[in-house]
Amino acid sequence: MKFGVNYTPSHGWFHAWLDPDWVSIDHDLQQIASLGLDHVRIFPIWPYLQPNRTLINHKAVADVRRMVHIAGEHGLDAYVDIFQGHLSSFDFLPSWLVTWHATNMFTQPEALAAQQQLVRVMRDELIQEPSFRGITLGNEVNQFSDRPHPTKMSATSQEINLWIDSLLSEAKTESTKSLYSVNDGTWFIDGHPFTPVQSANKGDITTIHAWVFNGVAQGYGPTSFECLSYAQYLAQLSLAFAQNPDRQVWLQEIGAPENVLARQFTPDFCEETVTRMLDNDHLWGITWWCSHDVSSQLSDFPEFEHALGLFDERGNIKSIGETFAELTQKYKNTQIVQPRNIALVIETDEQGEPLSRSQLAPGGSVFESWMKYEKEGKRPTLISSQLSKNMDYLSARGISELVPISEHYGGKFYTAVSDPSFEN
Amino acid sequence: MKFGVNYTPSHGWFHAWLDPDWVSIDHDLQQIASLGLDHVRIFPIWPYLQPNRTLINHKAVADVRRMVHIAGEHGLDAYVDIFQGHLSSFDFLPSWLVTWHATNMFTQPEALAAQQQLVRVMRDELIQEPSFRGITLGNEVNQFSDRPHPTKMSATSQEINLWIDSLLSEAKTESTKSLYSVNDGTWFIDGHPFTPVQSANKGDITTIHAWVFNGVAQGYGPTSFECLSYAQYLAQLSLAFAQNPDRQVWLQEIGAPENVLARQFTPDFCEETVTRMLDNDHLWGITWWCSHDVSSQLSDFPEFEHALGLFDERGNIKSIGETFAELTQKYKNTQIVQPRNIALVIETDEQGEPLSRSQLAPGGSVFESWMKYEKEGKRPTLISSQLSKNMDYLSARGISELVPISEHYGGKFYTAVSDPSFEN
Repeated sequence: MKFGVNYTPSHGWFHAWLDPDWVSIDHDLQQIASLGLDHVRIFPIWPYLQPNRTLINHKAVADVRRMVHIAGEHGLDAYVDIFQGHLSSFDFLPSWLVTWHATNMFTQPEALAAQQQLVRVMRDELIQEPSFRGITLGNEVNQFSDRPHPTKMSATSQEINLWIDSLLSEAKTESTKSLYSVNDGTWFIDGHPFTPVQSANKGDITTIHAWVFNGVAQGYGPTSFECLSYAQYLAQLSLAFAQNPDRQVWLQEIGAPENVLARQFTPDFCEETVTRMLDNDHLWGITWWCSHDVSSQLSDFPEFEHALGLFDERGNIKSIGETFAELTQKYKNTQIVQPRNIALVIETDEQGEPLSRSQLAPGGSVFESWMKYEKEGKRPTLISSQLSKNMDYLSARGISELVPISEHYGGKFYTAVSDPSFEN
Repeated sequence: MKFGVNYTPSHGWFHAWLDPDWVSIDHDLQQIASLGLDHVRIFPIWPYLQPNRTLINHKAVADVRRMVHIAGEHGLDAYVDIFQGHLSSFDFLPSWLVTWHATNMFTQPEALAAQQQLVRVMRDELIQEPSFRGITLGNEVNQFSDRPHPTKMSATSQEINLWIDSLLSEAKTESTKSLYSVNDGTWFIDGHPFTPVQSANKGDITTIHAWVFNGVAQGYGPTSFECLSYAQYLAQLSLAFAQNPDRQVWLQEIGAPENVLARQFTPDFCEETVTRMLDNDHLWGITWWCSHDVSSQLSDFPEFEHALGLFDERGNIKSIGETFAELTQKYKNTQIVQPRNIALVIETDEQGEPLSRSQLAPGGSVFESWMKYEKEGKRPTLISSQLSKNMDYLSARGISELVPISEHYGGKFYTAVSDPSFEN
C-alpha cells in the first residue's frame, strides 16, 4: 500500500516555481520522507512551462526534473501533474488560451497539439530520473469543461475522449504510469463531459479526489459515518464502471478541510478515513492533501486552504501529520483485503454510463443505498447494470450477490462546485 | 529630442523573463545602442512580479533591475512599464484577478493596495540604477476598463482618477518620471472611463500610442497625408486638454504595421511620420515599436506583430531600422520648432472633456478639420473650448487664432479595437 502526499512548497506555495529555493525544497522533501511516506505528487504551473503555444520553457521543465531528482534523493517516488490549470481556487491558464485568445483547450486542434508536445517533452525529460513514476495530465482538468467555471471551454464526451486518449498516449512509457484526474463533477453532475466510464477505464489507474466539503460533511455531519466513509464510497463508485476487474484506484487527494471539520477532529478524520479506505482490494495508494500549510502571508485563498498541511507554515509537524505518519507505518505493508461480494447495481445506458449522476451524489439514492449497506457491515461494492450482466466479470471481481437500487432520494445534499472554496 | 525603442527581447519575446538569457539581452541592447538611440522602454510581466496579491517575487524585480543596468552599460536610459497586463494581443493578468478570483484592478481596494505596493518596490529597486529614468504604470492599461475587452473591469472616470493618482504618486521620485499609458480608446471612444483630460494632465508627460491600423490607414489609405500625419494629430489632440501650456508629449509607441502598410513602404512611413512629428514644440521624444521582430517560432500573434522590429529575428538590421537610425542621427540635436498659432476649438464640457470623442477619431469632424488645415500648411493645433477662454494660456502656448469646428463628419473611419490584431 502506497502512502504519499501532494507536495505544496513551504516557501511561496506553487509560486516557488518562479524562483525555486532549492534548499527549502530539499528540506521540505526531507521532512516528507521523514514521515515514512513513499511518494509525492508534484504540480508545475502550465503558463511557466508553455508560455506560448509553440514555446516550451526548458528552464521550467528542468526545474520540475530537479524537484523529482531531489524527491528521489530522499527515497520518494514522484508523480507529476502537467496542466495546472487549477490549484486551490486559483486558475493558471497560459495567455494563448484566454481573453483575446480564448479558445478551447479540449477541442481546438492546435491547442491539443501543443499540449501533446508539452507532455512529450516532460515525459522525455522526467524519464531520465529513476524516481519519476508517472504523469497525471493535470489537476482536476475537467472543471474547465463545464459549469460552474466562469470561462468554461465546453466539449462533448466524445471530444473529451479524444483529448484524454491523445495526451495519455504521449504520457505513457514502459516503466511509468499515465493518468488524469478529475474533481467530483465527473461523478455527480449530470451531462458533465468527463464521465465515470472514462475515469474508470482510461489511464493506468483510476484517480479519485475525495473532498468532504461537497455536501457530505454539511448534509450528514462532519463526524458522520457518511463523511468518514466518503472516500471509500467514491472508490467503490469508480469500480462500478471499470471494465477491467482488476482495475486499481488511487485516492489521489484526501484532506481535512476546516471549513467543515473542527480542527481538533482532523486527526480522527484522517485515521477513520484512511482506515476505512483500506478495506478495498483495488486500492493502489493514498495521497494526502497536502504537505505544508499555505503561508498566512499569501492572500485570497479560501481560509481552510491555509490549514490542510501535515506541517504548519513554520515547518513543524501537526497533529494530523503525526497521525498520517503513524497510519503509514502501521499499514504500508498491509495485507490485501478480501473482495466485496455484494454489489449494488447502478442503472446505466448502453455506453455503461449512469442514467442519473445526481443519484450518485451525496443524498442521492445510490449514495444512500451504499452507505446503508456499508453501515450494516455488508461490505457493498457498486456495479453498473451493464457490467452486472457479465458473469465472468462478476466472478473475477468476487461478486456473488447483486442488489438493485430502487429508492429515489433526490440528490438533496450534493453541492456542485460553485465557488473557489469548493476546489483544490 | 529623444529617440528610443520599445524593447522586445530577440530570444523568446517577453517570455524571456521566465529564463532570461543575459548574453542575448546584452547583445540586443548593444544593437539598440548602436543605432544611436538614447533610451529603451522595458516591459516586465505582472504575474511574474506579483503572483499572489501579497507576494512580490523579488527575483523578477531583480531581473528588471538587471536589464535596466545592462541598458545603462550601453548608454541607454531605461523606462519601465509595470502592469503588463497586455502585450501584442496577449493578456497577462495574475491569477488573483481572474476567473474564480475575478475582481476589479481599478476599483477593488485590496487590489489597488497591492498595485501600490508593487510600484513602491519597483521604484525603490530601480532608483538604484543611474540609467533608470521613470515608470509607466503599464502598457495601455485602459483597455481592461471598457469594451471591447472580453473580461472588462468597469470603472467610472472618478474611480480611474483615484487609480491613476494613487499609483503615480507611488511611482514618483525626485529624479525620475511617473507616467501612465493608454491606447486610443481614451481619445476616441465615447464614455470610456480613461479620459483625454486625465491623459493630458496626470503624470509628468502625456504619452500617446499612434497605431495607424485603427482606421486611418484603411479609411484614408496607407500612403495618405492623414495616415502619415496621424501621430502628429494625436499629439496636437492631447495638447488640447493640457492645462499646463508647457506640457510635453511623448510619442511612446509608433510602428509600421504591415497589416495596413506595404513592407517596401515602411521605411518611407517611418521617415514621413517622424519628420512630420518633429514639427511640435511640445514633443519630448519618439519611441519606435519595436526593437526586434517576434520570432516566427512563436504562435498566435497577429501576423504583422512579427514584422514590427528594427531588427529581424536573426538580429540583422532591417531597412526601417536603418531609416530610424538615420533620422535619429539627423534630428537628435534638432532645434525646437515654433509654436503653432492657429488652434481649432474642440467643444468640451465643464470638466474640459470633449462633448463627443467619436468626433476626434479618424473620420470625425475634429480629425478632418485638423487634417484639412494641416494639409494647407496652416500648422494648426487643437484646444478645448474651456481652455480657449483663458487668454494667459493662449498666450503661453503662442495661440493667436481660434477656429471653431462646425462641420459634422460622422466618425466614419475609426475602428475601435475589437480583436487582437488591433492591439499592442
